[in-house]
Amino acid sequence: MDSVLKFIDDHRERFIAELQQWVRIPSISALAEHTPDVERSAEHLAHELRALGATDVQVWPTARHPAVFASFMHAKDKPTLLIYGHHDVQPVEPLGDWRSPPFEAVQHEGRLYGRGTVDDKGQVYIHVKAIEAFLRTTRGKLPINLKLLVEGEEEIGSPHLGDLLRTHAKTLSADYVCVSDTAMYGRGMPSLCVGLRGVISFELQVHGPETDVHSGTFGGGIANPANALARIITSFHDEKGRILVPGFYDDVVPPSDQERETITRLPHDDNEWLKASGAKSCFGEEGYSTLERIWTRPTLDINGMASGHFTEGEKNIIPRTAIAKLSCRLVPNQTPETIHAHLTKHVQRNTPPGITVEISPPEKGALPYVADTTHPIFNTARRAFQKAFGKETILMREGGTIPFVHTITEIIGKPTLMMGFGQPDENSHAPNEWLGLDNFHVGIKSAAWLYEELGKEE
Amino acid sequence: MDSVLKFIDDHRERFIAELQQWVRIPSISALAEHTPDVERSAEHLAHELRALGATDVQVWPTARHPAVFASFMHAKDKPTLLIYGHHDVQPVEPLGDWRSPPFEAVQHEGRLYGRGTVDDKGQVYIHVKAIEAFLRTTRGKLPINLKLLVEGEEEIGSPHLGDLLRTHAKTLSADYVCVSDTAMYGRGMPSLCVGLRGVISFELQVHGPETDVHSGTFGGGIANPANALARIITSFHDEKGRILVPGFYDDVVPPSDQERETITRLPHDDNEWLKASGAKSCFGEEGYSTLERIWTRPTLDINGMASGHFTEGEKNIIPRTAIAKLSCRLVPNQTPETIHAHLTKHVQRNTPPGITVEISPPEKGALPYVADTTHPIFNTARRAFQKAFGKETILMREGGTIPFVHTITEIIGKPTLMMGFGQPDENSHAPNEWLGLDNFHVGIKSAAWLYEELGKEE
Repeated sequence: MDSVLKFIDDHRERFIAELQQWVRIPSISALAEHTPDVERSAEHLAHELRALGATDVQVWPTARHPAVFASFMHAKDKPTLLIYGHHDVQPVEPLGDWRSPPFEAVQHEGRLYGRGTVDDKGQVYIHVKAIEAFLRTTRGKLPINLKLLVEGEEEIGSPHLGDLLRTHAKTLSADYVCVSDTAMYGRGMPSLCVGLRGVISFELQVHGPETDVHSGTFGGGIANPANALARIITSFHDEKGRILVPGFYDDVVPPSDQERETITRLPHDDNEWLKASGAKSCFGEEGYSTLERIWTRPTLDINGMASGHFTEGEKNIIPRTAIAKLSCRLVPNQTPETIHAHLTKHVQRNTPPGITVEISPPEKGALPYVADTTHPIFNTARRAFQKAFGKETILMREGGTIPFVHTITEIIGKPTLMMGFGQPDENSHAPNEWLGLDNFHVGIKSAAWLYEELGKEE
Repeated sequence: MDSVLKFIDDHRERFIAELQQWVRIPSISALAEHTPDVERSAEHLAHELRALGATDVQVWPTARHPAVFASFMHAKDKPTLLIYGHHDVQPVEPLGDWRSPPFEAVQHEGRLYGRGTVDDKGQVYIHVKAIEAFLRTTRGKLPINLKLLVEGEEEIGSPHLGDLLRTHAKTLSADYVCVSDTAMYGRGMPSLCVGLRGVISFELQVHGPETDVHSGTFGGGIANPANALARIITSFHDEKGRILVPGFYDDVVPPSDQERETITRLPHDDNEWLKASGAKSCFGEEGYSTLERIWTRPTLDINGMASGHFTEGEKNIIPRTAIAKLSCRLVPNQTPETIHAHLTKHVQRNTPPGITVEISPPEKGALPYVADTTHPIFNTARRAFQKAFGKETILMREGGTIPFVHTITEIIGKPTLMMGFGQPDENSHAPNEWLGLDNFHVGIKSAAWLYEELGKEE
């Protein structure tokens, strides 16, 4: 491995410069005017993978944005690792809050600033450069077989990823899966993410009068749909944030005593944690710490709502309608279907007279995921991290959702390794997104060690 | 009076045709592009009043839309009646719902359809034509002195009416005031409105995190401002609609037993009443009928609210902020100031940890009004109605607000006569506004009789 590690050290600056080239392509998947940029981003990556001498490189079109597939299949009788990442990025608004333009990829004090630096181009690049380090040194080939699937629609909810997995099931077959799209627990703390929450999004439409009516003529005599919506939303929680929807917690599997103990031992400071949101204080279900709340407990949050007249000036009406968009984060073994059924029943029971409520079918649903951490792959990954960082690995969960992980884990039948190199305060969906360049460097070494250690497996 | 009444009968069709001319001027005060139309509408009325031989006619400019003033001061030693109305009209959206164009003033089955037909051009015209009937017959002059104030900003909240009243206090001085801008209790039922609710509008701004944050990363660990706003709004009422804000009802003067009895005896059918709103059922405070609720009880309604992402697609965020626009309808002796103070205290007590709430100063405030119905002016008006309609007068209240009434009543020191000729289902702020032409006709006679009866007063 010496030559591989030396190559990584020797080409540190070039790797950064090349990543900058890629980051400068504004591959925003949510905005139609950037469709050609997402395409250019896919071609840019495909070109680089071809230049490395991949066995196969393909750009897979979808109904919207293309994914890149590549394979390096030179390690006969060795296991195959499928690496997942994405090359599309979040929108950049509000532009005025960026200290340097989001697509200039400016280096400053050991960080690379720009949209997509950490989410997820930098993390995909960690693998690309680890591969290069094996292929362009005396080793000449990888210790395992590698496949990369780098999609172009992650930031818009991966609408065609299921199709791609089905269509290319054979091409994508693998023994292990590694996802590099998560964050480390803290600075310099190698981390494996072993749990993700699922999600279900839905909409409530509350109807009252047939049209906006005069609040003088009718106020006090008919139900106001905005007040009714507020009452329904309030009925969802007690004042400490515990969810009151009957059946909501029925299927929740609490974390094991061992995991709770691990969580308790992790360095955590609520005040530090709060800084990333700017919220004034923590708030949540009694009997749980902040980490337990966001990793192991389900939620029911309003993502948005609207009713009547809310712009300048006043309009004394009882609005015709009120809508709310809501989403639940789910934990094992909750499913979008059962939670939707419980919510529907609860909403019906809490609808006041004179009001009708429609609850939409689940708009986005994804199952929660918790890895079986007794699987030997976790020890392999820990050894790789030990060698790259010289440190013990932290097992953590994340409160967010990566729908791909549950799906691919079902297909592969082995836990998915979530080896992320983000930082908790890296602004991944906000202005001034950045990638820590030390992390980028040690990340490449970690990936190299992961391949090496996996090559020693049966 | 025979010649006056005969003149009104003989010129019925011409009066309608002349009203149509005025209605065809689209004097929408809320829309800047109609500013010249509001001006044209004022000049049109002023021209007609001059042609009648008024003592004085003036168009009073304001910072936005002009008012028309006219006086007929030929009845020496007789009382002076100030008539208030407005010549501006509501916007017409949604245009597609009109069965005939809003400014064509089409006659159909005894109704005149068009924006402003009943609110308020038709009602102003009732007085103009009653005046004409005295001046163009053998009577030759009015039995009292008359002043008209017809403003051009009623539909935008009368922002300059206070200024006009102060600037022209002397010119406007009068013994009695008559407002014709309300509705009759029912078809063919002459009605005097003896009570109006007041109003206070304000806004709640609820702040949580400094920016919209990821509902996976933070959900369950920090308070969601939209959920917090819903909880605050819900804390305002019990589930039957009674307001729970401490102090809210402290100053409420209940209607007298006599008024409650009068209200109980009025013909009223909740199902008929509901039709005008399209709401599915009545809803409100226990222990009160619908009429009592909308006439004698205060309210606290959401007029609008907004938070986070509420347009197409989903965005799994905890919103940074949530706002609501609210208004209370007030009854005697509530005041905007004390109600605002009670609400502010209540909101502060119901703000969850990690959330800050700003409550705006009152954006619009108007005092409630209830007339002293023992004043002899009510008997005078009843006699006029008896002669015009051959029917007993109904004393009613309205749930809406006319800020002018409280103000002018304080100035004049006598109860304001609200003699309205609208119908409860006349669509006054909605598509297909109409004026009943029989009502218009009998209205002119009622106004003539009112002047005549007032002329007999000391």
